[in-house]
Amino acid sequence: MKVARFQYEGEISYGVLDRAESGEGVEVVELVSDPIVAGYDTTGRRIPLEKVRLLAPVIPRSKVVCVGKNYLDHVEEMKSETGGEVPEEPLLFLKPNTSVIGPDDAIVRPAISDRVEFEGELAMVIGAVAKDVPEEDALKYVFGFTCANDVTARDLQIADGQWTRGKGFDTFCPLGPVIETDPDLADARITTSVNGEVKQDARLSQLIFPLSRIVAHASQAFTLLPGDVILTGTPAGVGRLEAGDTVEVAVEGIGILRNTVS
Amino acid sequence: MKVARFQYEGEISYGVLDRAESGEGVEVVELVSDPIVAGYDTTGRRIPLEKVRLLAPVIPRSKVVCVGKNYLDHVEEMKSETGGEVPEEPLLFLKPNTSVIGPDDAIVRPAISDRVEFEGELAMVIGAVAKDVPEEDALKYVFGFTCANDVTARDLQIADGQWTRGKGFDTFCPLGPVIETDPDLADARITTSVNGEVKQDARLSQLIFPLSRIVAHASQAFTLLPGDVILTGTPAGVGRLEAGDTVEVAVEGIGILRNTVS
Repeated sequence: MKVARFQYEGEISYGVLDRAESGEGVEVVELVSDPIVAGYDTTGRRIPLEKVRLLAPVIPRSKVVCVGKNYLDHVEEMKSETGGEVPEEPLLFLKPNTSVIGPDDAIVRPAISDRVEFEGELAMVIGAVAKDVPEEDALKYVFGFTCANDVTARDLQIADGQWTRGKGFDTFCPLGPVIETDPDLADARITTSVNGEVKQDARLSQLIFPLSRIVAHASQAFTLLPGDVILTGTPAGVGRLEAGDTVEVAVEGIGILRNTVS
Repeated sequence: MKVARFQYEGEISYGVLDRAESGEGVEVVELVSDPIVAGYDTTGRRIPLEKVRLLAPVIPRSKVVCVGKNYLDHVEEMKSETGGEVPEEPLLFLKPNTSVIGPDDAIVRPAISDRVEFEGELAMVIGAVAKDVPEEDALKYVFGFTCANDVTARDLQIADGQWTRGKGFDTFCPLGPVIETDPDLADARITTSVNGEVKQDARLSQLIFPLSRIVAHASQAFTLLPGDVILTGTPAGVGRLEAGDTVEVAVEGIGILRNTVS
């Protein structure tokens, strides 16, 4: 099921995507509330998808947890800038919820950085309170999956050593376009394109630490709350974003997260 | 004015401390709502301070921003473990809101760390939306000040390189006991004691980056929201916490934040 958060005629609602009753196109079936906490009761209203503005499908009330160095080829390409070691455990950092934007929103390059880069990633959305969960149960705490862009001011990331500031600017965490609650991700393709040119192209089977391990590990440090988001790392091919660019993160089975750059 | 968040007869409320009407002791004057967003209207109820349980005076809905390496003597003592350079700008990292606890709550040492340490700090509580604010206006965005303990699993901080996990565990951000909205902090003393023995003893005049600079710098990276908290760095003298310890962070003019360790 594909869950959306959207704006229509000025109001913000949640919905699920469905084939249009006419048989052509896609409609959003409006839900009474946020399905993470309130289930799938509908208001009965159906709106053509092209008439709504999709928003970030979730705004974390607590945290966006991120994993660094989780694809071998990306660890290799970053060797000279952030170190070439493959971590023994998932390496965690946080982005604040003020960095989250939705599909088609603009990524704003801060004036104090000369090098803003894209990092396409798969994101997990937490559905239930999770603390110290074992790896074999960990995916039960995941509500669904979406696309993310771990936008990074690479110059500031490197200068600070700590990655928080370089990765935490407003607009540096695009999420969307929808949350897919039941995708087949075992070998799904993930790509990032800039102005239509593919820059990152990988399979989720290449993740060093699998999704269940990441959730279990993060829940060992932090209590994960419903609506928290976990970004799972980026493959090789990261690169610059310039004003006017359009960047797209696509995960097979989920959709395409498209953002402009200003 | 000293603002408290407290539990009394099962209910959680906000209040301000006042001399008891009898002339002896202190009472909490109950407020209608959170004064950060709703001002100081009172319910008219007054409760003796010793009858309430003080809670963390704020739960950030977005972030706890922290500053590393902001006292020279602490930079020096950590030289061999996290590097001895004095940063050119305030070095930022984040703690999640799930790490916040209140006065008298227990700091829980995680099983995966052998070295949990205290770091007594002054904390600022943001009162208004702040983005790219100039240093000369920055303190206008601060609602008030409280004591904080930037509890750290030193072994994991060092092993990860990124400080997020080692500093982000549940219970690793004690805040309180109250928010003082108008303290005289220019040369206030800050101390941390363990089981009554003073371990850290400094003056806020020793801060490398002053409070206004920290707010301005953080607001350049993140939009700061009302209720966000900024920890301002710890002086020399950090050290271990063991089960059964009582740790106290005291800032002159604000109060004493006391926590047990389990």
